[in-house]
Amino acid sequence: MHAADCIVIPRWLIPVEPAGQVLEEHAVVVRNGRIVALAPVAEAVGSFAAETVIERPNHVLIPGLINAHTHAAMTLFRGLADDLPLHEWLAEHIWPAEARWVDSDFVRDGTDLAVLEMIRSGTTCFNDMYYCPDTVAQVAAERSVRACVGMIVIEMETVWAKDIEQYLSRGIKVHDQYREHPLISTAFAPHSTYAVGDETMQRIRTLADQLEVPIHTHLHETAAEVQQSVEQFGQRPIERLATMGVLSPQLIAVHMTQLNREEIVLLAEHGVSVVHCPESNMKLGSGFCPVAELLAAGVNVALGTDGAGSNNDLDMLGEMRYAALLAKGVAGDPKVVTAADALAMATINGARALGLDESIGSLVVGKWADMVCLDLAAPATQPVHHALSQVVYSASREQVSDVWVAGQSLLRDDESSAQDEADVFERAAAWQARLDGRNE
Amino acid sequence: MHAADCIVIPRWLIPVEPAGQVLEEHAVVVRNGRIVALAPVAEAVGSFAAETVIERPNHVLIPGLINAHTHAAMTLFRGLADDLPLHEWLAEHIWPAEARWVDSDFVRDGTDLAVLEMIRSGTTCFNDMYYCPDTVAQVAAERSVRACVGMIVIEMETVWAKDIEQYLSRGIKVHDQYREHPLISTAFAPHSTYAVGDETMQRIRTLADQLEVPIHTHLHETAAEVQQSVEQFGQRPIERLATMGVLSPQLIAVHMTQLNREEIVLLAEHGVSVVHCPESNMKLGSGFCPVAELLAAGVNVALGTDGAGSNNDLDMLGEMRYAALLAKGVAGDPKVVTAADALAMATINGARALGLDESIGSLVVGKWADMVCLDLAAPATQPVHHALSQVVYSASREQVSDVWVAGQSLLRDDESSAQDEADVFERAAAWQARLDGRNE
Repeated sequence: MHAADCIVIPRWLIPVEPAGQVLEEHAVVVRNGRIVALAPVAEAVGSFAAETVIERPNHVLIPGLINAHTHAAMTLFRGLADDLPLHEWLAEHIWPAEARWVDSDFVRDGTDLAVLEMIRSGTTCFNDMYYCPDTVAQVAAERSVRACVGMIVIEMETVWAKDIEQYLSRGIKVHDQYREHPLISTAFAPHSTYAVGDETMQRIRTLADQLEVPIHTHLHETAAEVQQSVEQFGQRPIERLATMGVLSPQLIAVHMTQLNREEIVLLAEHGVSVVHCPESNMKLGSGFCPVAELLAAGVNVALGTDGAGSNNDLDMLGEMRYAALLAKGVAGDPKVVTAADALAMATINGARALGLDESIGSLVVGKWADMVCLDLAAPATQPVHHALSQVVYSASREQVSDVWVAGQSLLRDDESSAQDEADVFERAAAWQARLDGRNE
Repeated sequence: MHAADCIVIPRWLIPVEPAGQVLEEHAVVVRNGRIVALAPVAEAVGSFAAETVIERPNHVLIPGLINAHTHAAMTLFRGLADDLPLHEWLAEHIWPAEARWVDSDFVRDGTDLAVLEMIRSGTTCFNDMYYCPDTVAQVAAERSVRACVGMIVIEMETVWAKDIEQYLSRGIKVHDQYREHPLISTAFAPHSTYAVGDETMQRIRTLADQLEVPIHTHLHETAAEVQQSVEQFGQRPIERLATMGVLSPQLIAVHMTQLNREEIVLLAEHGVSVVHCPESNMKLGSGFCPVAELLAAGVNVALGTDGAGSNNDLDMLGEMRYAALLAKGVAGDPKVVTAADALAMATINGARALGLDESIGSLVVGKWADMVCLDLAAPATQPVHHALSQVVYSASREQVSDVWVAGQSLLRDDESSAQDEADVFERAAAWQARLDGRNE
């Protein structure tokens, strides 16, 4: 008998690799935070002596979801300004509110709320872009959730830095501080090609090569962005990045609603990862990312919620479903982006975008045990003809019963976290009162 | 002091009429199933002596949601065949499964599951189209939920009727049986212009006029449907119905993804109600209903989930959000279909389509107390800058805490319905085993 920390026995098990597989009567064995076996129940129980055996007889076990693009602290802006176009939303509402209110306390309280929301909805890893990434990293580490923290760069003075030198030096300091941390990684996060100049972008490219980290940026989010670039630089943003040599497997290009055929080929050739944010793109009327075409061309497409200011939640189960349904609608073809494709986008493809696919993104022996259990014994997910279909097309975030990151339990079906929740909500309500000018 | 049965005191109250209004510190007073007052809390409590006072301090109260198009019993086909186009899905999977399995037991068990799912997710009224409408009516009446039951007509022998005479006579028998029932109404439900011939459609028009009931039909769901009609009859389906005099405020036209400008004007002129089913249309790749244009033209647009076979749930909160986001995406304009518009589509517009807007669809004195409470004290709906935004853009079905139909409590925050649920799930699982050829 081998020693193990934990054996989880769900009714259904979806490892994501191989794609589309749904196992029954299988268990996952965890030791020292990693998956050491994935085997038929009798074999797992017969070969491993575990401290804990967790039976989940109505549940499906999947890899932890990876939110490949968010601005976590913006939960505090949730619902502040809806039904507006991107530029007006940013320039007239979000940027003024950020200038007035955002500091490290805001980022701490907003990220705390976001992390609570993400864990409860089955997200075990998030790729963040926001001010005060030191605080984001601290909250994620404290809450034991996995995060890729953005070394944000923008050609504008903010609470985080007064100029490019400071953005870079403070970002790299965060990188150095968490270099050996098992849960925290970093990426350069130049906001966009319209908010970061060529010189800065080239410095970031060089630094990203040296530090071996991804570059995470908004790209081709709206037609106006592309048009403006053509007018100002004579090039579409992707062309600008290609000229600067930024197109590579390190690039995480977010949104990408405006793409021609040549650009799709270019992305595939350079191994660029695209992060699709369907709810945000729809809500802001930004356009539709051609997901089916990107996947057919071999581009790695991950999924992100964007910030709660424009989504308005951080629910990756919902985002998967939007991704599958919207792709079918846009392509006029219900066969594209199947349930299995959508789940892969929300797990292994996200891991690949972050350069973490050797260690997370699927339930495979040797990877970290980042895992999520969903209880399908709810009216909207009965009966269960196909467990994978239920996860993508019917399940809701409240059906997430258990969450583990590197084998550590962050949510357990039978335990309450009401007290912790109350504190987070109280701080969020205090910010709401301040932002809305009420004294509560 | 006036007598009352119940006073509900939520933190926020959204009556839907007037549009967009969010009240705080207001209460709803109910007597004999109807709303008798909607007033500031002090006034309500000071004027009415109620048997029950229900305080919901973190909650928003809205009118019960109206699912304006579903096939309730198809919950038993949930997830049976995904990622397929409409015709293949129907012809190769659903119709054969229906021919083999559907009988009144199937309809009872499937509708029972559907009603459980709908009540839990805040739907208080559904407009159904399926075989054995007598059973659908019986289940709805037993469960005390409001339903408009479809007197289905299709030119094909099924378990429900062998020919048109029998479809009509059996349907009218259901109509007569429930004529005086406070919760059950009926509509003729000819499946579509491709499954019901001209002669039958004209008889239905005459009968609908005599019985003063709506005509509920699938219309312009796909480009192929329209194309086939042009080839076979030399007219688009809407033209055929116009020729037959079927376009009127009694017509409930479902899907409508293929519409030209003249048709939109025609619908507005004749007061036809459109039921938009965004999730189903996307999932089947059927096309996009031009909701923003329809609303701008003054057409009444309601919302439906369609059946769980193609959605895959009956969650009207989710459907509202898809409706708002998809309309913005399709129009390329985030200002269209605001949160308030989406909530109106899911409530008062649905009531108008069913001819029930004098009695349900908004929280107005004199109407039935069909009401739903949502608990916003959850991570994804904090903080609350705007309660209406939270309902449409962030809340999930599990946040529905209380449901009333005609003042009767069908779901209560503090009461469990686990036992009832177990029985419904057991029957669903038995059908699943039969359909999938397993002996469980």
